[in-house]
Amino acid sequence: MELLVDPSYAPGATLCAEESLHCVKVMRHRDGDLIVVADGRGNRYECRIEKADPRGCQLSVERIEQMPAPTYKLRMAVAPTKNIDRFEWFVEKAVEIGVSRITPIETEHSERTRVRLDRLERIVLAAAKQSLKYHLAKVDEITPLSDLMSEDESEQRFILHCAETPKEHLMKAAQKGRSTLVLIGPEGDFSLSEVEKALGLGYKECTLGPERLRTETAAMVATNIIALRNQI
Amino acid sequence: MELLVDPSYAPGATLCAEESLHCVKVMRHRDGDLIVVADGRGNRYECRIEKADPRGCQLSVERIEQMPAPTYKLRMAVAPTKNIDRFEWFVEKAVEIGVSRITPIETEHSERTRVRLDRLERIVLAAAKQSLKYHLAKVDEITPLSDLMSEDESEQRFILHCAETPKEHLMKAAQKGRSTLVLIGPEGDFSLSEVEKALGLGYKECTLGPERLRTETAAMVATNIIALRNQI
Repeated sequence: MELLVDPSYAPGATLCAEESLHCVKVMRHRDGDLIVVADGRGNRYECRIEKADPRGCQLSVERIEQMPAPTYKLRMAVAPTKNIDRFEWFVEKAVEIGVSRITPIETEHSERTRVRLDRLERIVLAAAKQSLKYHLAKVDEITPLSDLMSEDESEQRFILHCAETPKEHLMKAAQKGRSTLVLIGPEGDFSLSEVEKALGLGYKECTLGPERLRTETAAMVATNIIALRNQI
Repeated sequence: MELLVDPSYAPGATLCAEESLHCVKVMRHRDGDLIVVADGRGNRYECRIEKADPRGCQLSVERIEQMPAPTYKLRMAVAPTKNIDRFEWFVEKAVEIGVSRITPIETEHSERTRVRLDRLERIVLAAAKQSLKYHLAKVDEITPLSDLMSEDESEQRFILHCAETPKEHLMKAAQKGRSTLVLIGPEGDFSLSEVEKALGLGYKECTLGPERLRTETAAMVATNIIALRNQI
C-alpha cells in the first residue's frame, strides 16, 4: 500500500493539504477507505477516511504502530555542487540507501554557498515515500565547515579528500553500529588547512578506492559503504 | 591535465571534430602545445599540436603508453527506467565507479523497450573523460533478456529481484577477481518465470539489503558493491 507522509500528522489532526490532494485526486480514495499515514518520526497510522476532502482529509486512526528506528546513524556533511541538480540527486539517493542527517557545508573552495532548504526537504519527503521510510532524514541549512566540526559528536568521523596521502579504505576503517559522520568536499577539494584541522580533531582520512569520483558520486558511494558496513 | 577522448584516434590520424573544437575553443590550445589523447582502448598518447584546427587538429605523437586494464570485468544488464533520465544517470555513475559493459535489457514487465544508443555512448564518453578512464565501457543496444541469458559467459552471474525468497547479500556472494554479470529488473520487477529461468541457468539470486531501492539506485549500488569486492 502506498505510504502518505505528513510530518505534521498526529491522531485527531487533518491530513496536510498536499497529501490530501494526492490521496483524493491521484489515489482516488473515497470516504471509508483505509490509508496508511507516516509522520516521519517512526509512527505508522492506519486510518479510515471520514471525509475525503482534497484540501484536508479527516481521518480516524484505527491502529498505531511504532516502526523500528534505523539500525545506524549516519550524518553526511557534503559541499553542495555548483550544479545543484547533482547535489539534489545525491540527497534522493542517500535517503533511499539510508541516511539520518544531511548537512550541506561551506568550505574554503566551495563554489556554492546557498541551498534551498525547502527544495531539499521536499526531495527527502518524496524519496522517503518512495522507499517506505518511516523516519525522515533531517536536512540542515548550509553550515560553515568549522561550525560543523566543533559541534558534531558522532562516534566515528571521516574526512575524504583527494590529496595523495596514505589513507585507509572507508570500507575497512568504518565500524558497524557506531554513529558516523562523513565529510565530502567541493569540486576543488578541501584545503590543506581544513584537512589538517580535521585530523587534529581526530577525524580519520579515508579513500573510496582508486577511481576519480565526482563530489555527488563520492557522497553516494560513501553513504552506500556505511550502509553496507552496517548490513554485513 | 585534461584528457581528450577520441575512440577513432590512432597515430597519424586527425583528432575528431568534437574534441578538436573543445581543444581549440574551450581549452584554447595553440600550435606547439602538448595534449593527452586517449582512444578508449587503453592507449594514452602524448601529442604535440602541429595545427590547432577546430575542425580537426593535426597532431604528432611524442609518447605512447598502454594503460593498465581494469582489474575486474563487470557487465551490468539493467532494464531501462520509464523515465530515461534515471537510466542515463545510472550509466554516468557506473562509468565513474567502474563498469566494463552495460546492456539495457527488455523484460516481461519492461515499460521501456527503446533506448538511444548514441546518447548513452555520449554519456559514457563524457563520464570517462571526467573520471580519467582509459578503457571505455561498451554499451549495447537493448537486448531481450532471454538472448542475454543464452549468450553471456561471465564467471559469476547474479539476478537481483524483490520477491521474498531467502537470498544472500551480493556483498557476500560476489567473489573478487571473477568476471561478473548482474541483472537488474524493471520497476515492476522480473517475472517469476524470468527468475526461474535464471536460477535454472545457475544464476544466484541476491539481495542488496533491507531497503527498497529504485531500479537505477539498485543498479548503482550493485555496481559499487562489485567494485568494493574487487578493491578490498
